[in-house]
Amino acid sequence: MIFHVVTIFPEFFGGILRHGVVGKAIESGVITVHIHNLRDWTRDRHKTVDDRPFGGGEGMLLKCEPLFDAVESIWPERDESKKVVLLSAQGGLFTQDTARNLVQSKEVLFICGRYEGVDERVAQYLADEELSIGDFVLSGGELAAALIMDAVGRLVPGVVGNQASTIQESFRTDEETGRKVLDCPQYTRPAEFRGWKVPEVLVGGNHAEIRKWRRMAALEKTARQRPDLLEEISKEAVP
Amino acid sequence: MIFHVVTIFPEFFGGILRHGVVGKAIESGVITVHIHNLRDWTRDRHKTVDDRPFGGGEGMLLKCEPLFDAVESIWPERDESKKVVLLSAQGGLFTQDTARNLVQSKEVLFICGRYEGVDERVAQYLADEELSIGDFVLSGGELAAALIMDAVGRLVPGVVGNQASTIQESFRTDEETGRKVLDCPQYTRPAEFRGWKVPEVLVGGNHAEIRKWRRMAALEKTARQRPDLLEEISKEAVP
Repeated sequence: MIFHVVTIFPEFFGGILRHGVVGKAIESGVITVHIHNLRDWTRDRHKTVDDRPFGGGEGMLLKCEPLFDAVESIWPERDESKKVVLLSAQGGLFTQDTARNLVQSKEVLFICGRYEGVDERVAQYLADEELSIGDFVLSGGELAAALIMDAVGRLVPGVVGNQASTIQESFRTDEETGRKVLDCPQYTRPAEFRGWKVPEVLVGGNHAEIRKWRRMAALEKTARQRPDLLEEISKEAVP
Repeated sequence: MIFHVVTIFPEFFGGILRHGVVGKAIESGVITVHIHNLRDWTRDRHKTVDDRPFGGGEGMLLKCEPLFDAVESIWPERDESKKVVLLSAQGGLFTQDTARNLVQSKEVLFICGRYEGVDERVAQYLADEELSIGDFVLSGGELAAALIMDAVGRLVPGVVGNQASTIQESFRTDEETGRKVLDCPQYTRPAEFRGWKVPEVLVGGNHAEIRKWRRMAALEKTARQRPDLLEEISKEAVP
């Protein structure tokens, strides 16, 4: 899998790409990441990438021209296997389903703008997808791109040691209710720490009981932390 | 504002903390970030930070002891002005409201675990908040911590040049409907690019018209990209 990142902060990615699961995947050649400096595609001697918004207002926007030039020079030909993703606060929400979708592509190119300001024609005519990673405002798209590379990268076969652990995890679907649920609470040694004990069922060896406890504990934790994920269930339960 | 990060990948943060708005805030001393290596609080010669889950299953979990020791050694005394945030896929959802809340603290300490596996007693007895940044799975909490530092950091007075631009942006509340909306589409020069023109109203100078266009364009874009944000409006419209 090949990732491209177009950014005004190419040095930003140094540490990120050398560590963790994705760092190892890059080292072993399963994933390749090319970082591109947007200023390489400017045509004036000040290397201008941004300008003021039409109609007035705060902040600066990334201009069209360098971004179109960058994408068209990185990919002289585009086809279905290549996706351009614009990171912005105005995008559709990135989820685990988006990650599963993007991992089907051969190459993904991320446009990291000033997170809040990119000329709208980039979203309309250059990007395949405009994605946001959540309801908060960042100073740039770089962290969002790094995050999506991590979430997508770990789904590439061979990246996470045991593929089972990319299936049995949060945001999978509960078998009985068909809803997304969080992973259940987990415990490791010591069995007692400062008087706080691990739930007894987990220490015993009854696997059917453990499975039952985990499912209920996952639903309980989801109800507490993310009632929004379960909302649809209670709606349906109303006659 | 002081951030602490407890991580098994301390070098991960190098580039992140040197760039962008937060990088500048660190340089000017408005924000301080301390990166702590979790392995400094292990007591065995293998510097073990993780162990297998009780009850069986894939993956390893971060153990209680080094995490409790780390937090208690970084903060021998804790009070209301200090918040411990555990990053995990099982947390409550981090939003711009959470950012506005966290920026009220004097110090925030992030626990970056293997994103999916931390002994539950850390969430129950050590962390003030367990936060997730979205419905996707990451290989570690480091990117999540970096992201929250960015989103919170830019709300610290003096970090973003013009405070107005932290107010007039996405996820603010629409005045008439009282709902969260995305920012409106924005355009910069050239007024025409490859035949694609900037909406005429923005090029004219009628500020009342521009305001009106922007509000409608913001609602339209929100409806297209994030119908979930507007959902409540249509529900309420039903008699």
